Amino acid sequence: MAEQPLFRRVALLGFGLIGGSIARRARQTGDIAAEIVANARSEATLARVRELGIADRVEADPARAVEGADCVILCAPVGAYAELAQAIAPHLAPGCIVTDVGSTKQSVLRDVGPLLPEGVHFVPAHPLAGTEYSGPDSGFATLFEGRWCLLTPPPGADEAAVEKVAELWRRCGSMVETMEAAHHDRVLAIVSHLPHLIAFTICGTADDLEGESRQQVLQFAASGFRDFTRIAASDPVMWRDVFLNNREALLEMLARFTEDAQAMARAVRWGDAAYIEDKIRRGRIIRRSLIELKQA
Amino acid sequence: MAEQPLFRRVALLGFGLIGGSIARRARQTGDIAAEIVANARSEATLARVRELGIADRVEADPARAVEGADCVILCAPVGAYAELAQAIAPHLAPGCIVTDVGSTKQSVLRDVGPLLPEGVHFVPAHPLAGTEYSGPDSGFATLFEGRWCLLTPPPGADEAAVEKVAELWRRCGSMVETMEAAHHDRVLAIVSHLPHLIAFTICGTADDLEGESRQQVLQFAASGFRDFTRIAASDPVMWRDVFLNNREALLEMLARFTEDAQAMARAVRWGDAAYIEDKIRRGRIIRRSLIELKQA
Ligand SMILES: NC(=O)c1ccc[n+]([C@@H]2O[C@H](COP(=O)([O-])OP(=O)(O)OC[C@H]3O[C@@H](n4cnc5c(N)ncnc54)[C@H](OP(=O)(O)O)[C@@H]3O)[C@@H](O)[C@H]2O)c1
Ligand SMILES: NC(=O)c1ccc[n+]([C@@H]2O[C@H](COP(=O)([O-])OP(=O)(O)OC[C@H]3O[C@@H](n4cnc5c(N)ncnc54)[C@H](OP(=O)(O)O)[C@@H]3O)[C@@H](O)[C@H]2O)c1
Repeated sequence: MAEQPLFRRVALLGFGLIGGSIARRARQTGDIAAEIVANARSEATLARVRELGIADRVEADPARAVEGADCVILCAPVGAYAELAQAIAPHLAPGCIVTDVGSTKQSVLRDVGPLLPEGVHFVPAHPLAGTEYSGPDSGFATLFEGRWCLLTPPPGADEAAVEKVAELWRRCGSMVETMEAAHHDRVLAIVSHLPHLIAFTICGTADDLEGESRQQVLQFAASGFRDFTRIAASDPVMWRDVFLNNREALLEMLARFTEDAQAMARAVRWGDAAYIEDKIRRGRIIRRSLIELKQA
Repeated sequence: MAEQPLFRRVALLGFGLIGGSIARRARQTGDIAAEIVANARSEATLARVRELGIADRVEADPARAVEGADCVILCAPVGAYAELAQAIAPHLAPGCIVTDVGSTKQSVLRDVGPLLPEGVHFVPAHPLAGTEYSGPDSGFATLFEGRWCLLTPPPGADEAAVEKVAELWRRCGSMVETMEAAHHDRVLAIVSHLPHLIAFTICGTADDLEGESRQQVLQFAASGFRDFTRIAASDPVMWRDVFLNNREALLEMLARFTEDAQAMARAVRWGDAAYIEDKIRRGRIIRRSLIELKQA
């Protein structure tokens, strides 16, 4: 790549699927960061990142990791953000951009924003890309390609900083859009958080069946259930934090879904064929729209 | 293949994903049927099957299609079985084996069994294989490879007939297991029917959102929702019939799932992190078991 690196020094706080994918991308293209500093919580992850050699420097202390960085990216589960922000705030360089990749955005504005010193720019972001894998080995350079990244800058955010974060994600291969944090949380509640909650739940429901049936559920897992378990294989801590940090919107969408499921149950009980068929047809229309929008 | 064909003449009543896949398999291997007769409901499908040239003969009338056949396979939606059985019963050859591929099995015993004449063998079956596509073009010869096929013969079924149907599915590449129809319906309710009901429902819930949010759900469909829409793209008539013909077991599993989802909602509302994490971990265990059983 002929382009100059966008940042002099990028500090990644958390080095799992997302942090590791940003690092690999930056390494591969060279146009994102002149230097990459990595931080994680456990000694095991720190050692593994050193071994992988994807970061220029590995720091066990987040405060040391952010020193002199012009871009800091929080890549830990959203429940860890407040503590991380507290630890790094006094050590951030003036003019530094603090951003993140968390799946919930109102919580980030609430937990991180107030802790950052004057003169540091805060531009939360959420790349809509992932797999069911986690940890330092799970990342790959092309994870974000062709996927959306949503920015939710707080009112009055520095425009140049917002543009730099947008450019960071474009250089990761993403399309970028800006929206309000509350709106983000509502949309994500239905497209991602609720489907995960449902997938985890149905696996538990199956697991609770008595002896023989439970065994046969595993043996004969047909396509529907199999797809659900794939989603349900995702990281427990990350998802626990997502649910707890998007409580309102998630509970509202679950309530709507439950009402709709009850209406479907009623139609099944009373043999309302037309109702059932109509609902199924609408699912197909949504699917077709996705294919047209190339999101399928 | 050196093997002799298992049947002299196989009649397929219904020629969509499943019927079309059986026909293609039989054509490819030559060891299933010496002759394949195809029937479907619409003129369009009949014409298309003729065009594809996968059947030796195409008959618009199911009664004519089964004449002289030593194996008849019902491959229509389960809601159409009673009518089909009525139409073919007087025309079945003595000793003929009638089987099917329907996703619900108690309903088949109820709808078809009593209509068949003495001397005709009835061995219901359900191949656990499918895609979200339907119609005469959607089938392929390898659909059943490595997948289970469940047989639910009624009490006192002819053993030789059961063995022949088992062999039919083994020649399609499947593993075969026999179980009681009621048990089949219970297991399938949780591994397949409920996941589909949920997928259709959540697509409807999303579709009901107001203007801008609805648009953005489509635009930003993240992986969870995207996977659900894939399931939800399946054929409306087939699934309507499945739901209506496995009512009891489906409603019971939905009730269990709803209780579990409500417990999860409560944990989210009250911030019970340990409960949520535990539920998610159990989902992962199920996933791991599936991978070990090579069903993932
Ligand atoms: N996975 C997805 O599909 C996806 C998609 C979009 C956005 N996100 C968001 O991206 C973020 C990271 O997710 P991920 O999938 O990359 O997770 P991950 O693979 O599990 O990695 C998480 C990283 O955060 C570190 N960490 C965990 N707890 C911490 C704490 N209390 N303090 C400091 N560091 C901590 C972990 O360190 P150790 O390894 O040492 O424990 C690990 O390096 C989350 O906020 C998530 O919401 C995820
Ligand atoms: N799809 C799956 O994933 C799957 C998996 C396992 C088992 N099954 C079972 O397999 C059976 C067929 O499913 P499929 O996916 O192959 O469906 P499909 O692709 O929609 O094909 C259905 C076939 O049945 C015919 N048909 C429909 N209504 C009929 C009626 N009232 N009388 C006579 N024929 C009729 C259709 O004819 P026209 O084209 O002329 O309408 C078509 O040829 C169903 O019982 C289903 O439960 C499906």
